[in-house]
Amino acid sequence: MSHIRGRLGKAADDVIRYSASIAFDQRLYHHDIAGSIAHARMLAHQGIIATPEAEAIISGLKAIETEIERGNFPFKPELEDIHMNIEARLLEKVGEVAGKLHTARSRNDQVALDMRLYTGEAIGKTINRIREMESALLNLASVNQKVVMPGYTHLQPGQPVLLAHHILAYFEMLERDIERFNDALNRVDVMPLGSGALAGVPYPIDRNMVAAELGFGKISSNSLDAVSDRDFVIEYQAAAAICMMHLSRLAEEIIIWSSAEFDFIEIGEAYATGSSLMPQKKNPDMAELARGKTGRVYGHLIAVLTTMKGLPLAYNRDLQEDKEGLFDTVDTLLATLEVMAGTLGSLKVKVDNTKKAVSRGYLLATDLADYLVGKGEPFRNAHDAVSRLVGYASAQGKTFDQLSLEEYRRFSGRFDDGVYSVSVASSLKARDVPGGTAPKRVSRALAVAKRKLSASIRKAK
Amino acid sequence: MSHIRGRLGKAADDVIRYSASIAFDQRLYHHDIAGSIAHARMLAHQGIIATPEAEAIISGLKAIETEIERGNFPFKPELEDIHMNIEARLLEKVGEVAGKLHTARSRNDQVALDMRLYTGEAIGKTINRIREMESALLNLASVNQKVVMPGYTHLQPGQPVLLAHHILAYFEMLERDIERFNDALNRVDVMPLGSGALAGVPYPIDRNMVAAELGFGKISSNSLDAVSDRDFVIEYQAAAAICMMHLSRLAEEIIIWSSAEFDFIEIGEAYATGSSLMPQKKNPDMAELARGKTGRVYGHLIAVLTTMKGLPLAYNRDLQEDKEGLFDTVDTLLATLEVMAGTLGSLKVKVDNTKKAVSRGYLLATDLADYLVGKGEPFRNAHDAVSRLVGYASAQGKTFDQLSLEEYRRFSGRFDDGVYSVSVASSLKARDVPGGTAPKRVSRALAVAKRKLSASIRKAK
Amino acid sequence: MSHIRGRLGKAADDVIRYSASIAFDQRLYHHDIAGSIAHARMLAHQGIIATPEAEAIISGLKAIETEIERGNFPFKPELEDIHMNIEARLLEKVGEVAGKLHTARSRNDQVALDMRLYTGEAIGKTINRIREMESALLNLASVNQKVVMPGYTHLQPGQPVLLAHHILAYFEMLERDIERFNDALNRVDVMPLGSGALAGVPYPIDRNMVAAELGFGKISSNSLDAVSDRDFVIEYQAAAAICMMHLSRLAEEIIIWSSAEFDFIEIGEAYATGSSLMPQKKNPDMAELARGKTGRVYGHLIAVLTTMKGLPLAYNRDLQEDKEGLFDTVDTLLATLEVMAGTLGSLKVKVDNTKKAVSRGYLLATDLADYLVGKGEPFRNAHDAVSRLVGYASAQGKTFDQLSLEEYRRFSGRFDDGVYSVSVASSLKARDVPGGTAPKRVSRALAVAKRKLSASIRKAK
Amino acid sequence: MSHIRGRLGKAADDVIRYSASIAFDQRLYHHDIAGSIAHARMLAHQGIIATPEAEAIISGLKAIETEIERGNFPFKPELEDIHMNIEARLLEKVGEVAGKLHTARSRNDQVALDMRLYTGEAIGKTINRIREMESALLNLASVNQKVVMPGYTHLQPGQPVLLAHHILAYFEMLERDIERFNDALNRVDVMPLGSGALAGVPYPIDRNMVAAELGFGKISSNSLDAVSDRDFVIEYQAAAAICMMHLSRLAEEIIIWSSAEFDFIEIGEAYATGSSLMPQKKNPDMAELARGKTGRVYGHLIAVLTTMKGLPLAYNRDLQEDKEGLFDTVDTLLATLEVMAGTLGSLKVKVDNTKKAVSRGYLLATDLADYLVGKGEPFRNAHDAVSRLVGYASAQGKTFDQLSLEEYRRFSGRFDDGVYSVSVASSLKARDVPGGTAPKRVSRALAVAKRKLSASIRKAK
Repeated sequence: MSHIRGRLGKAADDVIRYSASIAFDQRLYHHDIAGSIAHARMLAHQGIIATPEAEAIISGLKAIETEIERGNFPFKPELEDIHMNIEARLLEKVGEVAGKLHTARSRNDQVALDMRLYTGEAIGKTINRIREMESALLNLASVNQKVVMPGYTHLQPGQPVLLAHHILAYFEMLERDIERFNDALNRVDVMPLGSGALAGVPYPIDRNMVAAELGFGKISSNSLDAVSDRDFVIEYQAAAAICMMHLSRLAEEIIIWSSAEFDFIEIGEAYATGSSLMPQKKNPDMAELARGKTGRVYGHLIAVLTTMKGLPLAYNRDLQEDKEGLFDTVDTLLATLEVMAGTLGSLKVKVDNTKKAVSRGYLLATDLADYLVGKGEPFRNAHDAVSRLVGYASAQGKTFDQLSLEEYRRFSGRFDDGVYSVSVASSLKARDVPGGTAPKRVSRALAVAKRKLSASIRKAK
Repeated sequence: MSHIRGRLGKAADDVIRYSASIAFDQRLYHHDIAGSIAHARMLAHQGIIATPEAEAIISGLKAIETEIERGNFPFKPELEDIHMNIEARLLEKVGEVAGKLHTARSRNDQVALDMRLYTGEAIGKTINRIREMESALLNLASVNQKVVMPGYTHLQPGQPVLLAHHILAYFEMLERDIERFNDALNRVDVMPLGSGALAGVPYPIDRNMVAAELGFGKISSNSLDAVSDRDFVIEYQAAAAICMMHLSRLAEEIIIWSSAEFDFIEIGEAYATGSSLMPQKKNPDMAELARGKTGRVYGHLIAVLTTMKGLPLAYNRDLQEDKEGLFDTVDTLLATLEVMAGTLGSLKVKVDNTKKAVSRGYLLATDLADYLVGKGEPFRNAHDAVSRLVGYASAQGKTFDQLSLEEYRRFSGRFDDGVYSVSVASSLKARDVPGGTAPKRVSRALAVAKRKLSASIRKAK
Repeated sequence: MSHIRGRLGKAADDVIRYSASIAFDQRLYHHDIAGSIAHARMLAHQGIIATPEAEAIISGLKAIETEIERGNFPFKPELEDIHMNIEARLLEKVGEVAGKLHTARSRNDQVALDMRLYTGEAIGKTINRIREMESALLNLASVNQKVVMPGYTHLQPGQPVLLAHHILAYFEMLERDIERFNDALNRVDVMPLGSGALAGVPYPIDRNMVAAELGFGKISSNSLDAVSDRDFVIEYQAAAAICMMHLSRLAEEIIIWSSAEFDFIEIGEAYATGSSLMPQKKNPDMAELARGKTGRVYGHLIAVLTTMKGLPLAYNRDLQEDKEGLFDTVDTLLATLEVMAGTLGSLKVKVDNTKKAVSRGYLLATDLADYLVGKGEPFRNAHDAVSRLVGYASAQGKTFDQLSLEEYRRFSGRFDDGVYSVSVASSLKARDVPGGTAPKRVSRALAVAKRKLSASIRKAK
Repeated sequence: MSHIRGRLGKAADDVIRYSASIAFDQRLYHHDIAGSIAHARMLAHQGIIATPEAEAIISGLKAIETEIERGNFPFKPELEDIHMNIEARLLEKVGEVAGKLHTARSRNDQVALDMRLYTGEAIGKTINRIREMESALLNLASVNQKVVMPGYTHLQPGQPVLLAHHILAYFEMLERDIERFNDALNRVDVMPLGSGALAGVPYPIDRNMVAAELGFGKISSNSLDAVSDRDFVIEYQAAAAICMMHLSRLAEEIIIWSSAEFDFIEIGEAYATGSSLMPQKKNPDMAELARGKTGRVYGHLIAVLTTMKGLPLAYNRDLQEDKEGLFDTVDTLLATLEVMAGTLGSLKVKVDNTKKAVSRGYLLATDLADYLVGKGEPFRNAHDAVSRLVGYASAQGKTFDQLSLEEYRRFSGRFDDGVYSVSVASSLKARDVPGGTAPKRVSRALAVAKRKLSASIRKAK
């Protein structure tokens, strides 16, 4: 971390414009001030500065925080970054003693601290938003608990499933997302101050006191690593990329399901938009934006990985590039979760249409094959028989229940009257295994999910 | 392209925040207004609207442009984007007739037009900046035309080269960058207006007139493609990624060359920075930032490719994500070229140190092998002999010219007095092939490069 | 480029396994041999080696090529790469004189040459495959020239378009792809031999003669650049990424169109697959694979960009990583084009279903608004009226032609009997602008495309 | 998962070539067979098939495994994948009963199982290799425990550090890598069998029995999620990307440190290579390849993220693309760890050169400033005084200990004789904080690291 040495007209302007980070790192002001206050307290506690000096510094910092929150703080690009802006302002406010705050600290460990405080906070917010999204999913599943729809593979109808079962698949994805963010938190939760520029500091500081004050669970073990480590930034971005991928899948389904051809759902007015040219349209714009913004989050992940590649130890100015991508990823993920939860909350399922779709497409073919297997037919034979049966029915333009027993028996002598009891309901009910779509299994899974969510929300409070 | 249909409290706020693009697409205001003026003129010329109507619209648009440029324009997020903001303001300014501007146009073809105007302009600026960077390279090469340095492979000294030859390698890279941007321009230079929302428009418009007015060379051939094509955005980003890669290589060399251990160059005060903690340091921050920002440009490339993957035709709202990444790439590339040109202009080469480096490391080993080949030794044998000779000299701590003829002859009987005329100068001079480092070749290459650059600058004027 | 120095048991094995490239670079054998033959001829022509020496070398190389093509060549991993394998074999075949082939050449310029010969050839093949794909598109458009389908934005039906118009949008994309590959060819078409390891060679070679022999249009201008430039690899990959993106869009449409709900097309038996479990299914696997493989091509692009980032000049071993990604991209793109062309050739359009889809969803709403504009209504008012009309019709479950004039007139007094002549046919016909979907425009566009394709195929022959 | 339905000459060949995965998924044979055996046992235990049937199937599968391991298995591309190859062979071996193995199982849940077994195993191997690399680091640190070198920021010497301290920074990175892989294992450790094609299976299976038999800790909770989830593949790839990034940083340092200008280390013969053209060179090829291969691993990460983007539930054929990238990432990471550990083991540190480097470059400037602060000077003033002192000394060509007290006092009156006791040793000793470079801290950190490593290796046994 460094300040501009030269002051040479256009060159200096170009350089400031290129290197100043105040436009985006000002969002770290709170973390920077909190870190400085903890540091000042510790310095006084250890007798490195006098208590009145610490008090002056701390009250100056608090006044600055108020200024920033009220929008009265005079940010100056020529002071490059949030740290220098606050430092310079502190000097104006409390005089020479301000300089003592920088005892036993470098901008390298200071910025590492700020980024860790920021990222820890971002993880907390992210998990909360995921919980809200989970709540929206569970709500949608509850309200539509009896709705049947085709389960697809290859976007072809495969077997009937409960809509709630389909929705709960997304609950599982989001649960894993939460796990990943929580795991990442373990690597964020490390207090780097005391690493100095790269080698540690020559003062009798108490690093654990600072950590405790700021709520960290651990202190860093190696000063060179502490100032050059950005793993935690990458880890947030990787977890966010996977989470956005999940949301993009849900978005794609919302888009496809709102097409006139599927017509399974209607998106609420607030989350759909009309067309300037085509007055009849109601577009799933929010889902499209969510899907599109997946690209941006993937991009930020690859950006920070690229930036870190091949950097020698310890701090290099390249590391300044860790911020904008992370900030945008956090903003994008939080907003996407919010808008997607809203969209889910606004959905109306068109039950007649999902039902009609289940009756199309011979979705019970697997069940017919299983029926033959139950009658003693080896699986491959049963599969072949039903395959030919489907070809026949399709050519005749008949659904299964429109076929006569005689027609059935052309394909296998094992068919008998029982074939007519193979139904959507029997198909669902038969899949009575943990994780299966049998109504009682889904109902239990939904209850488990609700309990899990309530427990975790209670815990978070 | 669409407007928010619902207006429902928090949901509406979330949705506007998520989908509004006015914060970043306002930089398209000039292109949007230019496009609208050309469209209005054409509508009048074709008799689709009356000439006084067109005149009212055009003078309203011009007034709006002035407002924006003076900073008096009231941007409104709830109007989502630059197009709606201008449209709404036009209505305030000229009344109902404003609505006629949207005859025979959709926001889908309008935004495609704006992005093409913007990208075309960005390419022009980019090429200019590359020219300036090339000029800085040629200057550095000229000033240091006789400076010799080690040519490296694997960061190990290989053979002596002229510094100017090394610098000219970057000139070649930048020439290819210019070619790529020019090629991309061919795909940008296509006028999409008249494509409507997706199918073309039902009015007797003259698309070629609009193209001519706006300086386009071609009109688009298929309306569905025209509103959903963002190849030109990707192509700019891909060319920018390659250009940043080149700059990252130069940045890496500047960083390594300014290390205390290499110490080949000194960066001018304006482009180096000191340390808050270590007063002796002079850091190559601009080069480090340039290297680091390569990540961001790669990231934007992958972002837009991801966004476009698997989108059905024609316009989808995902396409809104084409903008921020492109804008940031353009800004980053322009600023990096500027700062790197400045850095080059500020460099002082430490001739004694590059010379010393050439004397280290047995750089003439290849020449000694070639000398033996010239005496009739097969290449592989010559190579082996010199390899053993280097081992011997290194163990003795001697350079080649400190070896006696007797010592030479222990490794090959073909060595004679002539071996002492193998020198850095002879090594350079011998590489007298097109593209080689022989001084007269480099001097010619430098002259050619200068002529090429002047010609292209003249042409651009 | 380098050979393994140490031979120390396990370490050596690990190292060979890690660094040997023969498993994948053996596909360069033909280019390597062609380059060596041209080099040998030139060496003899310039009197650097004797003509009989060159002849021995060349006939040895030709014999090796035959061995490889017949599968008799003994590839050895411990010889690391294709160059060393051929070199060692040449020594076995023609004895000591083999060593003379390496006069005035280094492995650095040799591998650069091979990669350029390979990439040039790959571009030729790629363009041919794109032509075949274009041919399949034009065929599909011709056969279905009168088929109408909904044109979509946001996957919502917007306006009727001709299927042929939709298909021609992909023709436009592929035309740009060809342009990009052709542009890249300009940067490939540069002969690097004579650059030596990095500085040029100390022999009176004739670089232009080698270039002419191998069909290159230019020779490289700077030896340091020539051995460290891989722009052309990246450029192929970037063009391929864009082309795969186009194919992923088409694949997505094929998948959606073959869903039971859209049911617009049927994929031929050869290009659809059944399910092991669900006998009724016919899955669009080829389209799904094409869409999925887009990821791999994007990945290879980012891989090579990452590898090149921040490398100092000139050759570094990192550059070996340029190959596998490129080879896989070329293979993937060629195969995807082939399979997608085949899939297109096998498609049957279900005309009744596309027709039915056009009648759903109030696709003529824009035309009704335009009709009102034609009657003198300002555009925004017309839009509002039709918007309310759609809401009414939808609530009544009526299509436009089921509405009475009286019902129409509730929304605008300007409606008269003429409203019933607004039809799909009139809608199409009205979009009579260049690039529009009017049948005569589409028919002309199809004819132009066919002429363009035939001309380019003729030229390629 | 599906088999080719059509068999139509060239089309079929193209399709098989495009879609067959047997060339790469054959490495899953062991996991596939293990999964099938567990499934067969459970089917028999539950009475779904007869025990003798299960026994026949199991002994057939074991025989097939032996065939594969002995290289006698006839792999057939037209059977597409490893599952079908084994299934078909089982039929040949045990007859019709083979078909019963597919009861209550689909290829969708089968392939999910195989990939989870593979990835779990890969994580185990990866962690072991990281341990070996850690061991090599600790060894290098132990052997060179007293070696001092410059600590760098911006590749400029900043403050003296112990080489062991620098090396331990990489130990910290690798510890985080292990944590991440272990965290990922929690998401891998989920047994998917029983999910069927997408909806669960209609048989009274015991999923927990299968999980226990195969060593899984959990069973999947939702069948749709279980067959379409590839988070665990992405998570491995993301952790691998971060680990490769760490290795690329170490590789960069090895490359820079082996340059003739730094000359801090010598790489052992086995891990350095010579040049075909420049006989004096000893290139750090393994480190360069490690750095270069970082690109490939980043690429595979972005590839799988791209592939998964926007896929509707449940299984889609796109998912087949999860394999090759993962396999290559695993192979690359394992091999890179092995070769980098070997390189570290072969390093010799050139103690004289690191010492000389510490004496260059005024590394004690911070300590002099701290010395003045200790005398009562405010930090900023002390910094300024030393900054001017460095400028003076540098202009005079003197090191700090060559300055007279009088010279010192020109810059601050607070300097006295004590200034001469500021030394590299005093500088190191002063950084006596947890994580600092003070020798006793480093020695303790090294001991802690060794204990940690031994404990974890013991635990793994």
